[in-house]
Amino acid sequence: MLKGIAASQGIAIGKALVIKEVKPEIKRIEVANAQAEKERFKSAVETAHKQLEKIKETAARKMGEDKAQIFEAHIFMLQDPEFVGAVESKIESEKVNAEYALTETVNMFVSIFEQMDNEYMRERAADVKDVGGRITNILLGIESPSLAELDEECIVVTKDLTPSDTAQMDKEKVLAFATEIGGRTSHSAIMARSLEIPAVVGIGSTIEEINQGDMLVLDGDEGIVIINPDEEQLKKYRAKQQELAELKKELMQLKNVETITLDGRKVELAGNIGTPQNAENVMHNGGEGVGLFRTEFLYMDNDNLPTEEQQFNAYKEALEKMEGRPVVIRTLDIGGDKKLPYLPIGDEMNPFLGYRAIRLCLDRKDIFKTQLRALFRASVYGNMKIMFPMISSLQELREAKNIVEEVKAELRNEGIPYSDDVQIGIMIEIPSAAVISDILAKEVDFFSIGTNDLIQYTIAADRMNEKISYLYDPFHPAVLRLIKMVIDNAHKEGKWVGMCGEMAGDPKAIPVLLGLGLDEFSMSASSILRARKLIRNLKFEDAKRVADEVLNLGTGEEIRKYVEENIK
Amino acid sequence: MLKGIAASQGIAIGKALVIKEVKPEIKRIEVANAQAEKERFKSAVETAHKQLEKIKETAARKMGEDKAQIFEAHIFMLQDPEFVGAVESKIESEKVNAEYALTETVNMFVSIFEQMDNEYMRERAADVKDVGGRITNILLGIESPSLAELDEECIVVTKDLTPSDTAQMDKEKVLAFATEIGGRTSHSAIMARSLEIPAVVGIGSTIEEINQGDMLVLDGDEGIVIINPDEEQLKKYRAKQQELAELKKELMQLKNVETITLDGRKVELAGNIGTPQNAENVMHNGGEGVGLFRTEFLYMDNDNLPTEEQQFNAYKEALEKMEGRPVVIRTLDIGGDKKLPYLPIGDEMNPFLGYRAIRLCLDRKDIFKTQLRALFRASVYGNMKIMFPMISSLQELREAKNIVEEVKAELRNEGIPYSDDVQIGIMIEIPSAAVISDILAKEVDFFSIGTNDLIQYTIAADRMNEKISYLYDPFHPAVLRLIKMVIDNAHKEGKWVGMCGEMAGDPKAIPVLLGLGLDEFSMSASSILRARKLIRNLKFEDAKRVADEVLNLGTGEEIRKYVEENIK
Repeated sequence: MLKGIAASQGIAIGKALVIKEVKPEIKRIEVANAQAEKERFKSAVETAHKQLEKIKETAARKMGEDKAQIFEAHIFMLQDPEFVGAVESKIESEKVNAEYALTETVNMFVSIFEQMDNEYMRERAADVKDVGGRITNILLGIESPSLAELDEECIVVTKDLTPSDTAQMDKEKVLAFATEIGGRTSHSAIMARSLEIPAVVGIGSTIEEINQGDMLVLDGDEGIVIINPDEEQLKKYRAKQQELAELKKELMQLKNVETITLDGRKVELAGNIGTPQNAENVMHNGGEGVGLFRTEFLYMDNDNLPTEEQQFNAYKEALEKMEGRPVVIRTLDIGGDKKLPYLPIGDEMNPFLGYRAIRLCLDRKDIFKTQLRALFRASVYGNMKIMFPMISSLQELREAKNIVEEVKAELRNEGIPYSDDVQIGIMIEIPSAAVISDILAKEVDFFSIGTNDLIQYTIAADRMNEKISYLYDPFHPAVLRLIKMVIDNAHKEGKWVGMCGEMAGDPKAIPVLLGLGLDEFSMSASSILRARKLIRNLKFEDAKRVADEVLNLGTGEEIRKYVEENIK
Repeated sequence: MLKGIAASQGIAIGKALVIKEVKPEIKRIEVANAQAEKERFKSAVETAHKQLEKIKETAARKMGEDKAQIFEAHIFMLQDPEFVGAVESKIESEKVNAEYALTETVNMFVSIFEQMDNEYMRERAADVKDVGGRITNILLGIESPSLAELDEECIVVTKDLTPSDTAQMDKEKVLAFATEIGGRTSHSAIMARSLEIPAVVGIGSTIEEINQGDMLVLDGDEGIVIINPDEEQLKKYRAKQQELAELKKELMQLKNVETITLDGRKVELAGNIGTPQNAENVMHNGGEGVGLFRTEFLYMDNDNLPTEEQQFNAYKEALEKMEGRPVVIRTLDIGGDKKLPYLPIGDEMNPFLGYRAIRLCLDRKDIFKTQLRALFRASVYGNMKIMFPMISSLQELREAKNIVEEVKAELRNEGIPYSDDVQIGIMIEIPSAAVISDILAKEVDFFSIGTNDLIQYTIAADRMNEKISYLYDPFHPAVLRLIKMVIDNAHKEGKWVGMCGEMAGDPKAIPVLLGLGLDEFSMSASSILRARKLIRNLKFEDAKRVADEVLNLGTGEEIRKYVEENIK
């Protein structure tokens, strides 16, 4: 039995398909005609570009636009003069073969990125390797192993899956995968979850014990792989598989029922989406609406600012797909860790405390107005609500609302129809907004609590920073108190409160949030039915009592324990 | 009349001493013996090192250790193989003269630093230029213009003052200075304030209108320079000068009186210090204690971690200089924007939300225990209080207090005396700490509110980031509400609350803070007497009413206006 990291839920039983990485040895060869060699390199880059366009399309179809963004990044790298130019000038100045010049350049970039001690840059290193490997294989005429066309069902066993491998994976044939390296947040793990393929990653060198064709049991909940299981084990896991299948069936029966507690408190369960297509997934999983439609994909997947028309079409599509259910669309939240190549905003010492989201939009009114025009034009196609991210003060809210009024006046003048029922809300993700939520509540229609950022700022801890991410705790009493404050202040003004951070989909947090009075929970589509089952088995009165109680406890640990002991 | 940026208060009337920058033209010359050229460069570096050691000593004496740190950075640069090595290898590989190799290298570093769009890196660029210019002058045998020995009183007029120029300035002769470039936070401006020399910076190219020997009036409050003033102007400014001198005299009479409002509310006015020597300044300005002793200088001025003995001596000195008055010593607050070359902590994407202060100390118990041992050993020499920076949770406080107990037990076992009356407090500078201050208050002796960070985190705005620093607002209603919460929670448990951020010394904020119930205000020594005068003219009841009122206002702007109108 091998132990790894549980990366994607589910049980798979099947034969191992072991894929060995073929690492071609690259020799330095002097070339007479550097120009011809550069042409050869250029042509390989073009081929890589075509491959990636195709992979990107497949990925977008299978996993959604947001997951396909990584290939956008790869394509962008092929166009980056710093990268391509470095290889070409190496070929030129050293008169060497393209494979060698490329490998040296890739190694240089990788070592620079890996030295920077943070997860984000290490991911960039993985991207450079992936792209470099692709071009090398093209140059050498090596066919990359393809998981797109497989003859029979199998469990893929390999060192690491590049994002490209994962994107092309034939979901019908690949029952699960197991990798030697990687963590819960590595690209392959994220993609496995979105493909709903069970996966165990980071198994380490013991993975070599698996031989081609071995029978495997892979448990994506426990993070284990059993090689050639005995009859008893097989029986146990087949039973577990059966159980999961039944749970899935049971959950699907909750698709069209209300989200209501045993004692009659009704809440709304909504989905977070990154593209209009994702709305289908929310509908399929019984979502009662969209609580967060991130509009960044329109800007990230583009070489330029998206036009009003492009945006209008996307918003209209999402609204139509949701068939009249509420769709909360968040205005542009770029900056921080999300940068646009065509909209450089300069290096910042602390990007999370910098120029981003509404701050950028109020400064770049042109960008903001284009988005608002597109939104209001789309508003007649469904039940649209708009929310502004990163509001920290009443002035910002008022400024943003003024621009909304300007846009509406423009549309009126142009005779373009828009809905007059569009609710305007804000994200509560900055502590100052939570603390003055009584004041803000008077001038909005709703709040949506963004816990990911709210927790980071409240505790002053960047959750991507491995050294102090242990401080990031949704159960920190200060976090729960701020949430309580926000909900109470909104309710006093008769406004509703949603939550669209990860916390809203966490089964451990849901009872407390319910007890605090949260009206709408927005989460990834795949979590909705489980959350509904959970809430339908709770009593609101119990949840309220527990929520009141934990606000007086001193630490996150005590709170977790109290909740576990007092919520069945 | 020329208009610039008011960089340091006061009025000066005197003759202009115009210093023109001599910028030697550096030519590229091929040298036959690269080895000899490298030796010549090395020797110039050594001379620069000696000069800088001397300047550093002068600066430390005149302006305090913390202001002298910049020269530590310069010396460090001379020892940096990346810099020195780059010059040497250029001499070697291109066989060129040292001046040329140096200039090219400096330009390269400067352009790299200047491209990084933030103030900190631009300061680094200024440092590289300063050091490069020094070595170039040594190589060329050019005597740098010295402001250390002047024949008569003058107002220095120049393009820019390097930190080295400012540090050596003869305060008896230099009445004021005016520069073409620079901003309020440039090194020269900061040093002018600490030397208490009036200064106007950033005047721009119109500064060339000033001729050698012109009579000047320089107003460091308004940021103006008048060239060859007429009789009326001279009369006006002489009167203003007189007024300031009288105010100073009046303030000095408040040196030994209580800080008490007209209706009898007594508070403590303390000073912030960065070195034990600074304590003299606090005493001279009538400080009733030290509200914040930053201990970072011990770590920054060193090539290694400071020993227990070095620390013990520094703490003892500060306690003795304060003659029994309370001294609040903050344990190590390194990380964020303060890095130690000998304690690399890796690059972080958001250092302000990263591994710093108590987070580092709880991780590096060895460093923390050495400091605590030194502190407790020194505790018998005065009235010492200890506070921990960046506490975000009850767990951290408890962990830190456990380590204090360990250290005390060790000292007991070793028979080393320490005081049993040392109060233990924490900085409240993270929103989560403010929100759970009722819980934390039960386990500390006092709070000290660190507004600089508290505001940054509460509003999620890095105040060093020029693009969004407008959001940083001490009068944001959320900030005032959190301060109120902290003070009320502490008082409920019978604990006192101080404040050691810049806000505590701001005359506009003091009435509100007084009204909110703050017990101790800690500020730069030079602000203490003005604050005392202000408070002695206020009624606590008025301040309280105003403070209550502003907590219901929606924006910082409204609050400012209300305070201005309601506090005479």
